[in-house]
Amino acid sequence: MQVVDLRSDTITKPTLKMREVMAQAEVGDDVYGEDPTVNRLENMAAELVGKEAALFVPSGTMGNQLAVMTHTQPGDEIILGQESHIFYYEVGGFAKLSGVQARTLDDSIGIFSGDDLKSVIRDDNIHYPKTGLICLENTHNRAGGVAITKEKTDMICKVAQKNNIPIHLDGARLFNAVIQLDIEVKELVKNVDSVMFCLSKGLAAPVGSILAGSKEFIEQARKNRKMLGGGMRQSGIIAAAGLIALDERVEELQVDHDLANRLAKGIKEAGLKAIDIKEVNTNFVILEVDEDVYTTDEVLEILAEHGVKMTYFGSGLIRAVTHKDLSVGDIDYVIEVMNGELLV
Amino acid sequence: MQVVDLRSDTITKPTLKMREVMAQAEVGDDVYGEDPTVNRLENMAAELVGKEAALFVPSGTMGNQLAVMTHTQPGDEIILGQESHIFYYEVGGFAKLSGVQARTLDDSIGIFSGDDLKSVIRDDNIHYPKTGLICLENTHNRAGGVAITKEKTDMICKVAQKNNIPIHLDGARLFNAVIQLDIEVKELVKNVDSVMFCLSKGLAAPVGSILAGSKEFIEQARKNRKMLGGGMRQSGIIAAAGLIALDERVEELQVDHDLANRLAKGIKEAGLKAIDIKEVNTNFVILEVDEDVYTTDEVLEILAEHGVKMTYFGSGLIRAVTHKDLSVGDIDYVIEVMNGELLV
Amino acid sequence: MQVVDLRSDTITKPTLKMREVMAQAEVGDDVYGEDPTVNRLENMAAELVGKEAALFVPSGTMGNQLAVMTHTQPGDEIILGQESHIFYYEVGGFAKLSGVQARTLDDSIGIFSGDDLKSVIRDDNIHYPKTGLICLENTHNRAGGVAITKEKTDMICKVAQKNNIPIHLDGARLFNAVIQLDIEVKELVKNVDSVMFCLSKGLAAPVGSILAGSKEFIEQARKNRKMLGGGMRQSGIIAAAGLIALDERVEELQVDHDLANRLAKGIKEAGLKAIDIKEVNTNFVILEVDEDVYTTDEVLEILAEHGVKMTYFGSGLIRAVTHKDLSVGDIDYVIEVMNGELLV
Amino acid sequence: MQVVDLRSDTITKPTLKMREVMAQAEVGDDVYGEDPTVNRLENMAAELVGKEAALFVPSGTMGNQLAVMTHTQPGDEIILGQESHIFYYEVGGFAKLSGVQARTLDDSIGIFSGDDLKSVIRDDNIHYPKTGLICLENTHNRAGGVAITKEKTDMICKVAQKNNIPIHLDGARLFNAVIQLDIEVKELVKNVDSVMFCLSKGLAAPVGSILAGSKEFIEQARKNRKMLGGGMRQSGIIAAAGLIALDERVEELQVDHDLANRLAKGIKEAGLKAIDIKEVNTNFVILEVDEDVYTTDEVLEILAEHGVKMTYFGSGLIRAVTHKDLSVGDIDYVIEVMNGELLV
Repeated sequence: MQVVDLRSDTITKPTLKMREVMAQAEVGDDVYGEDPTVNRLENMAAELVGKEAALFVPSGTMGNQLAVMTHTQPGDEIILGQESHIFYYEVGGFAKLSGVQARTLDDSIGIFSGDDLKSVIRDDNIHYPKTGLICLENTHNRAGGVAITKEKTDMICKVAQKNNIPIHLDGARLFNAVIQLDIEVKELVKNVDSVMFCLSKGLAAPVGSILAGSKEFIEQARKNRKMLGGGMRQSGIIAAAGLIALDERVEELQVDHDLANRLAKGIKEAGLKAIDIKEVNTNFVILEVDEDVYTTDEVLEILAEHGVKMTYFGSGLIRAVTHKDLSVGDIDYVIEVMNGELLV
Repeated sequence: MQVVDLRSDTITKPTLKMREVMAQAEVGDDVYGEDPTVNRLENMAAELVGKEAALFVPSGTMGNQLAVMTHTQPGDEIILGQESHIFYYEVGGFAKLSGVQARTLDDSIGIFSGDDLKSVIRDDNIHYPKTGLICLENTHNRAGGVAITKEKTDMICKVAQKNNIPIHLDGARLFNAVIQLDIEVKELVKNVDSVMFCLSKGLAAPVGSILAGSKEFIEQARKNRKMLGGGMRQSGIIAAAGLIALDERVEELQVDHDLANRLAKGIKEAGLKAIDIKEVNTNFVILEVDEDVYTTDEVLEILAEHGVKMTYFGSGLIRAVTHKDLSVGDIDYVIEVMNGELLV
Repeated sequence: MQVVDLRSDTITKPTLKMREVMAQAEVGDDVYGEDPTVNRLENMAAELVGKEAALFVPSGTMGNQLAVMTHTQPGDEIILGQESHIFYYEVGGFAKLSGVQARTLDDSIGIFSGDDLKSVIRDDNIHYPKTGLICLENTHNRAGGVAITKEKTDMICKVAQKNNIPIHLDGARLFNAVIQLDIEVKELVKNVDSVMFCLSKGLAAPVGSILAGSKEFIEQARKNRKMLGGGMRQSGIIAAAGLIALDERVEELQVDHDLANRLAKGIKEAGLKAIDIKEVNTNFVILEVDEDVYTTDEVLEILAEHGVKMTYFGSGLIRAVTHKDLSVGDIDYVIEVMNGELLV
Repeated sequence: MQVVDLRSDTITKPTLKMREVMAQAEVGDDVYGEDPTVNRLENMAAELVGKEAALFVPSGTMGNQLAVMTHTQPGDEIILGQESHIFYYEVGGFAKLSGVQARTLDDSIGIFSGDDLKSVIRDDNIHYPKTGLICLENTHNRAGGVAITKEKTDMICKVAQKNNIPIHLDGARLFNAVIQLDIEVKELVKNVDSVMFCLSKGLAAPVGSILAGSKEFIEQARKNRKMLGGGMRQSGIIAAAGLIALDERVEELQVDHDLANRLAKGIKEAGLKAIDIKEVNTNFVILEVDEDVYTTDEVLEILAEHGVKMTYFGSGLIRAVTHKDLSVGDIDYVIEVMNGELLV
């Protein structure tokens, strides 16, 4: 049976080129700062996003948690979207590891408004925690992969700066936003204090993410990384794939976006009674299920029976994510399956 | 100048009777469990609220923080209102002290709905924290002192029980709710796992609150109290005032509520152009200021010039809280001042 | 049966004068900074120990935990004696509440040496926590109530200052040291950055301790006190007893020390086969039991049968603490009991 | 200039075979449990050490921190050596991340005694933290790479079991102990509840360590790993090298030990006035410097001028660690340099 896995772009496998460079990579002990490949990746990444320094970390979650830990003091409050990955999917880490409390705002469209933000920044009061950090996410996963424009980002950054609050951007899929918005990444993240982006996911490196910010921030984050157990030795092996990811994969994300559009268009044109397209953003397609006809779980099961894997995304919603390891034929097969099996 | 202080009922001074019993109180070393007055207060309080055991603590904040610490494990998520005292006014304590993250719901009317609650209880998933506790507040301070009915409370408790999640009630002003709802306190808190109430505030004891729950819960909370530094020695002195608070002050809260109603009625009848009554609940009066006429700060200043102290309660809102140390004459003086100084 | 309780000086009951002033105390809401009696106590205490500011807290444990929390950052290492109260008796609070790790030194004689201290101060290294605080204790409980001289204290302070590490003194029984060493308290604590002392214990106030330090330090500690739940309302009631404790009880500690000496002398002269005096310091008497004759528990039981209460202090050791609520007759009764019951 | 780097075995580079298998490795998304190579490594590792389950982690520090976090509750006390890696070199992580306090024992010979252990296990007392974990280290880094015998290990395990306290073994260099003691690894770790060992260091994999224990323990550790950011995606790439490490490198550690002995013997025979061998254990050689002749730093500088890198190991002490990337010629060169340059 043909298998088409649209659960997530986290499943992408390294390219042949990545495997080659990993096999050849020059390595050293990165805890001593002596891995030339890691150093090259960190320098390249910092320059790319226009920050002073960068740090290679084993996962996006560690990059985000380090950002929270390094920007804040325990007892602070951080402001972030209630649908954000840091709040929703990181196992309560910021509370346990950094001792900060979350003030959440409505980010169902991918970002909150400047007015909402202003309304929750804390004054100085003996009863209040200090507002220690604001977090954004771009593209925004639970809002359906939506790319947040530079204008919207900067509007939040302006409020943050005015109140002397640092701002961190969770850019796990930052380059999907960059491609979609047709903007230089440096421009998009210009006004945030720190940014994390993943080399895995759409960019297809097997392991690793980057946290970038000021020199002082990264120096402190490097020590915190050691504490969390993210200090690795000859990590140049995996950093080598990261270099290829940045060199060769960024532009290719357009292909993923095209596949998402092809999938959405195909489903729309099929005119299924029970399934409609709610949103197409970057490499995300969000399907809406008419639960009077099928339950969401039934749809997922029917698809799975034909080798098509998608994800439950809340009641009546299904998420399909396109990525490097899919072909046009795969997408057409999915449309065909839906057309055949879910007509009624 | 006459001073009428409506900022909060936290300013109440002990009664003469309280001073007498404090001077006479039989005491012992409570860390050894040997203070007879503390023991009497804890037993009486447990029985009053229908729980197995109770613990005397120096403040409502400590009672609430102990509840969170004792019910949860670090890394858990707790569900509570975004306007709740635990979330809003306790300096981020639960994150720093207990390492738990807060999932907040809209409680602008004093409580959230069962459906809202259900929608945020976490499944078992490697990305998710565990939902470890649900917190309610009664009366609800930031919702304007509103008393939450037994029906609404039990509806939430039912969802909590079904999901095996403990529920804590912050009852800093629990007896104001009891008086307003004309219900036995035992009935009102029957289905919560733990409850905290203050002996200070309207009940006028100088210091102290009670945390009540199961025997096992209180035993663990007692050890946690020691860690937080809430273990006191001859605390029978202040516990003695707590006994009077429960014996003689509960029924008297009706007087505070009557004063609140008198104040609201008087202001309404004055027909001020710029000031209206938004809500009267228990001993809280919330005034609404037409900011086209006066800013909220201007109103507070004008009142203060005449010895009348109220509290800023958000843009366009002022809070007045009635309590034991106010007379009918004080209230009438406030109405008179407003009538004279804020007519236009 | 006559009861003579030598378990601890924590059991002291307030004096008549304390009860009188508590009954009369002028109070206000201390969270608003409006309790005149608390303010008077904090000012008096700060001046007494020669620090800029002071904070009234419900217990010595809270004072110590606030000191650790306010001086350090989570992830720091603190240096303290392995027998110190903060390490031994405070329920692991500093790790859970402040996230710091302890580097312990041998303080079996009440203090560690400057050389031992130097050997464990951390360099700057990516693998190391930062040394964030040094703690001393005077008198030192588990070393048998020994008073630490100004010279020894200053020697440690000198190393601390040279390394830019703040130093906190747990002075739960500070005034016992002051009386024993015949020194002004201000002189004794001159070179520590913060000091905590108890108003209860030998000084006999029912509840309360003082934390003193720089203005900035105390301001931050005040906010942390709110978080821990140590912010109390009309706490002038108990602060009033604290004022009497400082005014009238300090000199009286000499009586406690005399009683300790009388007890030790009496036991020595009794020439018991199985029991000897190990140490007499301030108001502590440490007895040594020859476990070939009696087990320590047996001795404690025999004494208890005659109403004499002492404390197990490790294998072969018993602690007796003298205090205000004991008379010369009580002490002589203890000697008599031992003489009669423990001769063999 | 010839460079001989004896600073640590952490600098070892992957073998050719490792590079080959990494380039070919079959991978999947390990957060979904779908990476076949990671699964194979975890199964093989669990079986090797005789535990139910194992978890692949990016570093030894993360493995140790996960063990502490998973075995304990915040507020617990853990017992470990004052020279242990977890206490000494992990940036205070256990306090900040897990909120536990350390009770340290003298382990200058690599392990503490059963009697020392017994003397610090906590009773149940309201003032005390609970003893939640005991940690051992084998081989013991700061004790000079000494291998701890099964007998010594089991003696500690016996005390632990009797007191119902779990025991974790930091086996960063576990296989150096296995080779030295000529014992099956399964036997050596039989009585510990969890064990961590590194695939890097002497075993030469570029990245990664294993944590092993009961099924339930590893399941909880897996969730905690996600929180710390150790959940990686296509980590089969690096796990592939780990498989080779276990298959082909374990027996080869004997070569490292032989090199250490050759180095020690050579230096001894040189009869240097200022430098002697303090200890040779497994792949560690500890040199003692007569600081009347040279300071330790001078010796390190002289060696460095000739391309020989060793590590400062405390006043008068130098550590040299042998490993896979050294030849007999390298060792002889070091001896020659010392003989030539450090004769006086």
